Amino acid sequence: MSIYLDHAAATPLDPRVVTAMMPYFSEAFYNPSSPYAPAVTVRRDYEAAKAKIAGVLGAQAGELTMTAGATESINLAFSGHTGHVVTTTIEHQAVLAAAARYDHTLVAVDAHGRVDPAAIKDAIRPDTWLISVGLANNEIGTVQPLVRIAEIMRGVRAERLEQGNGTPLYLHSDASQGVGQVDVNVARLGVDMLTLNAAKIYGPKQVGLLYAARSVELAPQIVGGGQEQGRRSGTENVAGVIGMAVALQHADALRKTEAHRLAGLRDELQKRLLAALPSAVVSGHAKHRLAGHLHISFPGIDAERLVFGLEDRGVLVATGSACAANKGTRSHVLTAIGLAADVADGSLRMTLGKSTDEAAIHEAASSVIDVVNTEIARRKR
Amino acid sequence: MSIYLDHAAATPLDPRVVTAMMPYFSEAFYNPSSPYAPAVTVRRDYEAAKAKIAGVLGAQAGELTMTAGATESINLAFSGHTGHVVTTTIEHQAVLAAAARYDHTLVAVDAHGRVDPAAIKDAIRPDTWLISVGLANNEIGTVQPLVRIAEIMRGVRAERLEQGNGTPLYLHSDASQGVGQVDVNVARLGVDMLTLNAAKIYGPKQVGLLYAARSVELAPQIVGGGQEQGRRSGTENVAGVIGMAVALQHADALRKTEAHRLAGLRDELQKRLLAALPSAVVSGHAKHRLAGHLHISFPGIDAERLVFGLEDRGVLVATGSACAANKGTRSHVLTAIGLAADVADGSLRMTLGKSTDEAAIHEAASSVIDVVNTEIARRKR
Repeated sequence: MSIYLDHAAATPLDPRVVTAMMPYFSEAFYNPSSPYAPAVTVRRDYEAAKAKIAGVLGAQAGELTMTAGATESINLAFSGHTGHVVTTTIEHQAVLAAAARYDHTLVAVDAHGRVDPAAIKDAIRPDTWLISVGLANNEIGTVQPLVRIAEIMRGVRAERLEQGNGTPLYLHSDASQGVGQVDVNVARLGVDMLTLNAAKIYGPKQVGLLYAARSVELAPQIVGGGQEQGRRSGTENVAGVIGMAVALQHADALRKTEAHRLAGLRDELQKRLLAALPSAVVSGHAKHRLAGHLHISFPGIDAERLVFGLEDRGVLVATGSACAANKGTRSHVLTAIGLAADVADGSLRMTLGKSTDEAAIHEAASSVIDVVNTEIARRKR
Repeated sequence: MSIYLDHAAATPLDPRVVTAMMPYFSEAFYNPSSPYAPAVTVRRDYEAAKAKIAGVLGAQAGELTMTAGATESINLAFSGHTGHVVTTTIEHQAVLAAAARYDHTLVAVDAHGRVDPAAIKDAIRPDTWLISVGLANNEIGTVQPLVRIAEIMRGVRAERLEQGNGTPLYLHSDASQGVGQVDVNVARLGVDMLTLNAAKIYGPKQVGLLYAARSVELAPQIVGGGQEQGRRSGTENVAGVIGMAVALQHADALRKTEAHRLAGLRDELQKRLLAALPSAVVSGHAKHRLAGHLHISFPGIDAERLVFGLEDRGVLVATGSACAANKGTRSHVLTAIGLAADVADGSLRMTLGKSTDEAAIHEAASSVIDVVNTEIARRKR
């Protein structure tokens, strides 16, 4: 049995999620748009799942557009207007790529990966229509001050109203990495749009959603049969959405206890590693950080060698994010927080989850210490 | 046990498809972009599934972009160029909606729903870059002369080359409804792009693909991590694509025998209905029609009443297509083939599939005859 510490990259489906999905692969396979009773039941089950999800978010079901995952949701959030957009230097590639299609400003973050709401405010221009700030960073786990950003934006909206500037100003947040550990109630966060991904909370891959408040004008990217209130066409992913609803309900119900538990385990792992390897550098905000995230760098060591060394010992971890890692390029997040190249290149991301217990943390800590020490010794030879 | 005759709307998953998908929900849940061995194995399984699909199409795996279904594939096929597009009046709403974003020409079809390749040729302008013709119509089952259209387009391309007109000219076909009954080898069809949907061939919903020949320039709609050769970002739908590969292989292996079997059953159903209800009108081409499709209209009868009457007897059929039916609007396909309103409004679509046997056809025929006669009697009172 391996010790899996890459929950930010993928999670196994909760068996209850699989159980909830199964009927919709077989006896309840009907097209939810068909007119006969068994199909109408499928339609109702689908709508009930959306209502459950909406309940967790404090939203209305009609404000949810179900998508094929966070990347599609993000692209949809960026669709529908012309003008200027604002985001940060440490967003997921989907946000950066979507922003690059517009006149855009990337706001810098501090050494802990936190964006200053005042810097967001300074970046807003009269033609800015969208501000997109991830709830929590997928590499270093830093949680952003969304509530404060939302407050500032309300002030800007009021000013615009006075000035007769009719440009809308929306706050979108990619919450793929925060959900299950951080509150994602849209009213409390103050967001106009929110992206979620089932695959990070023990739900199916390629299932996600974009919450968009009724007031938000969205231009559909994918047109056709008019499903999802015309915002995203295509026969509904019945099994996937029902699976996501179950996953999200469990994630939300366990959120506080699980965040507490994971933070304890993560802190223990961090303490052990720093005690044995004092030159290690932990990135991410000390306080505003996802409970399950530990990003740690070993200066001068090749992280890829560590990943493979750890794999030999049955410990699965990531170097940076899975996407960036696969391309062999240095993480833009680590560059943005000012990590020196030789530190960044020695970075491991360890993300804890449901299967992580104390024994796993002890085992992982001693494996990392051994593998790093082996590498240090090898370099000295 | 009900008799399901709406296979064009949805199909249950083949149990072998579910079995193939299951491991990727649990022990093989890894992100295919992660670096450690179990994730690399998932990546390999995913690529192997794409290679299998490519094999059925006579394509290269690198020419396939896996999507969340036919609607997304169609939207992607229409993305990437400016200029004029040509399609037909009876395409699926996804094609019509995508075409509506461009300067476009809708070519009319004959009373059997067949498009004349010469009419397609006449619609081509110097700035036409895309021609999109569905392999088979989802309502009336008519199969289009794609091979002939492709031939004509080769001639136009040759002319353009001589004239120094550098505008590309692509042939796209939505083959969602044809696959499993008609050959979908891309070279034999002569298409540059092809859309397929797993949900119509006993595979999972929200899984599809766009084949695009290497020479085709596509502009991604969904940007981000750069998956699918940069043509469609987002963590891969590992389970879904592996399920689609199994579904497509079975559909292709059984294609000829199943098409023969279904045509026999469909002809028997049609014969019985026409014998008992001589005023009924069958739509779709007599020869070039999907084996499992029977579109039949009962003039002056309300098709919705028939659908519910049949449901009471355990026979599930559609009025027109599921999408249009749900909106209570008259089918654009039936209008396009010139069906009078009172005929169109009395239309049933019965689509046969794997579960359909002779007993089901006999039972369905007598149920339809009973229900229609009951309606005729009711109207006379």
